[in-house]
Amino acid sequence: MARVRAEIIIVGDELITGEVMDINSYFIAKRFRDMGVEVTKITTVGDVREEIKEAFLRAMEKNEIILSSGGLGPTLDDHTKEAVADILKKRLVIDDSILLKLKKRFKEQGVAMPGLATKQALVPKGATIIENPVGMAPGIIISINKKSLILLPGTPEELKRMFEDSVIPYIEGKYSLPPIQIAVIRTTNLLETEIQDRLAKIMKKANNVRFSFHPTTTGVDIKMYLEGKRGLKKVIKEVESYLVPNVYAIEEKEIEEVVGEILRRKNMLLSVAESCTGGLVQHRITNVPGSSEYFKGGIVAYSNEIKISECGVKEATLKEHGAVSEEVARELAEGIRERYKADVGISVTGIAGPSGGTKEKPVGLVYMAVSDKEETVVEKRVFKGTRKMIKMQAAVAVLDLLRRFLLEIIE
Amino acid sequence: MARVRAEIIIVGDELITGEVMDINSYFIAKRFRDMGVEVTKITTVGDVREEIKEAFLRAMEKNEIILSSGGLGPTLDDHTKEAVADILKKRLVIDDSILLKLKKRFKEQGVAMPGLATKQALVPKGATIIENPVGMAPGIIISINKKSLILLPGTPEELKRMFEDSVIPYIEGKYSLPPIQIAVIRTTNLLETEIQDRLAKIMKKANNVRFSFHPTTTGVDIKMYLEGKRGLKKVIKEVESYLVPNVYAIEEKEIEEVVGEILRRKNMLLSVAESCTGGLVQHRITNVPGSSEYFKGGIVAYSNEIKISECGVKEATLKEHGAVSEEVARELAEGIRERYKADVGISVTGIAGPSGGTKEKPVGLVYMAVSDKEETVVEKRVFKGTRKMIKMQAAVAVLDLLRRFLLEIIE
Repeated sequence: MARVRAEIIIVGDELITGEVMDINSYFIAKRFRDMGVEVTKITTVGDVREEIKEAFLRAMEKNEIILSSGGLGPTLDDHTKEAVADILKKRLVIDDSILLKLKKRFKEQGVAMPGLATKQALVPKGATIIENPVGMAPGIIISINKKSLILLPGTPEELKRMFEDSVIPYIEGKYSLPPIQIAVIRTTNLLETEIQDRLAKIMKKANNVRFSFHPTTTGVDIKMYLEGKRGLKKVIKEVESYLVPNVYAIEEKEIEEVVGEILRRKNMLLSVAESCTGGLVQHRITNVPGSSEYFKGGIVAYSNEIKISECGVKEATLKEHGAVSEEVARELAEGIRERYKADVGISVTGIAGPSGGTKEKPVGLVYMAVSDKEETVVEKRVFKGTRKMIKMQAAVAVLDLLRRFLLEIIE
Repeated sequence: MARVRAEIIIVGDELITGEVMDINSYFIAKRFRDMGVEVTKITTVGDVREEIKEAFLRAMEKNEIILSSGGLGPTLDDHTKEAVADILKKRLVIDDSILLKLKKRFKEQGVAMPGLATKQALVPKGATIIENPVGMAPGIIISINKKSLILLPGTPEELKRMFEDSVIPYIEGKYSLPPIQIAVIRTTNLLETEIQDRLAKIMKKANNVRFSFHPTTTGVDIKMYLEGKRGLKKVIKEVESYLVPNVYAIEEKEIEEVVGEILRRKNMLLSVAESCTGGLVQHRITNVPGSSEYFKGGIVAYSNEIKISECGVKEATLKEHGAVSEEVARELAEGIRERYKADVGISVTGIAGPSGGTKEKPVGLVYMAVSDKEETVVEKRVFKGTRKMIKMQAAVAVLDLLRRFLLEIIE
């Protein structure tokens, strides 16, 4: 079966001037691969109508699908619709349903609709509109024989949602794509080289599966890609057997989702006392819809004063061992669990840097604890990187500590 | 002075299949902008010699500088040097100095040099070698009249180092680049279209300044770019005068940095009680190095129980008005300030969704408050988007409310 080919065109001055980092092409390329569509090229151009036209024309020579991101907004430097209309010799016409929605949105926000906003409702004649459930600019699909021009807005959250909701069903309906099996095994606390060593034999045996390894803030994701209808499940089971207990998910789930599922299943309530992560642990927990069912709340105990008065850390412990210590991590986890009347409490205390490190307690040193009525477990880690990177790694590490702790509890 | 134009070519299968995110083009584009080189396009292609050739040929039509990343390694799927040699009709020859270094490296590591490694020492005849102080693959510069082909390896750390050490001096030596002035004005709570309406006159008058508008989670960033030695300061002042009080920074600063500077200057201590943002407000505050000097800590009051027992919200208020209300926002801000003995307290309560909305209180409804000893101010906002987008917008909005509140206080 001939592969369906696609080119991705990213539009925006902010991208070729290095003001904004393009993350859309990465997302689209990944999702296309998952669907069995072959991406041949990614082209990024500025907000210049002639450049956009040229990029589309060249992309149309070799690809069935041309998907663009950006340049659909209402301002004068948005040109994507105009460029495509030029190429196809179509007029831009006002779409009444879009205009109506725009008017409604402005009314809801109690803002007068600026004249320029009407531009958002212009579409090339005969195009199909893609709903934008999370933003203003709708997307557009133009189908010409076997080719499809798909124009999406540049805001990543909007683009992702519209891609998942509308673009995938459209492409799967129009093109016949090869059957693809994909799996992701997410691991923590293992080096990439160690994983590759352990899997060397399986990888040789399952040579129809394409393996790739992706370091993340959580650990290493192992991706497996197989063109064909069967055979991947067995490989997944084998890979997993070599890596337990460092496998925390067999899907593209975030660790906070995995932890949330376990807490919900065990009917347990969680509370958090965090210091160096400064709110990030709770931010990640509450990114999961419905997390209020198992997350009661918690404290960002940034100052020692708060650690003592609000989290039950003893002044003597702080004096003797310092805020970044096994003992304080333990008292924080126990204190927050008792005070917030939760079933399980977790804590993080560490040095996020860039200053505040010493020879004994360097930047990146982190103590984490998890506590239920029966016991408290403390772990020490040392992370590398910038302040933000240390916060991220510490947040993921304490969530993984919680995951492993919960799985040990007999149900 | 005519601008020096550049195209960036990114080479690698892993990039068009979404296995690895390209961060090199962002780095290069930003550095080029700072130098006064105009990037016209970024093209990403796979490890296919014909595709690489075509990308270079097209880039050479319109640009003085063509800089590529990737495809310089020793394996069979590295094709960049071969593609460029084909185009220029040059032979690839072994560079003895590179070969010597390679042999030395392998010897140091106690590993036999694989036959393929020799490929690393091949360069198009007459090319200049760029040292790679942190990796194996050297870079290559080929200068043909006014044009330069610059080939760098794809590993980000190697590319960055070689760009800074060798590429910048080369380009500054060969081309005469214009003096550049750049400014960023960051605004909140204004629509992009509204800003453009207000600035229409200045933009017309200052037609030597390139304006661009970038929606962020914080609001809209206005970037101004001027080729020349003077004149931007006056424009900045004028732009600001039309947008006060929605301007929160005149640099590429995050709002939490701006707020942090004001708190430090006023010598005030902050505490936070947040509900729907779930820790994100405090996470952003603590992303700033040194934030422990003005941030005491706070509470993620996710359950009503915690709002009552820990933040001083009255049960009657919750019953009468509901958790998402002006009154609860007020009591949260006042409660956390008193309880944490801070000078100023802020709060957020709202509905992040996707469920939990009603007709009266839709998903996205957020109340925010800021409180000091003198007064408490509450604001209501309705945000659109996904759960994460609503959290992000609410976090920024409450930080901006705090900023405006602090600026009202007479010092």
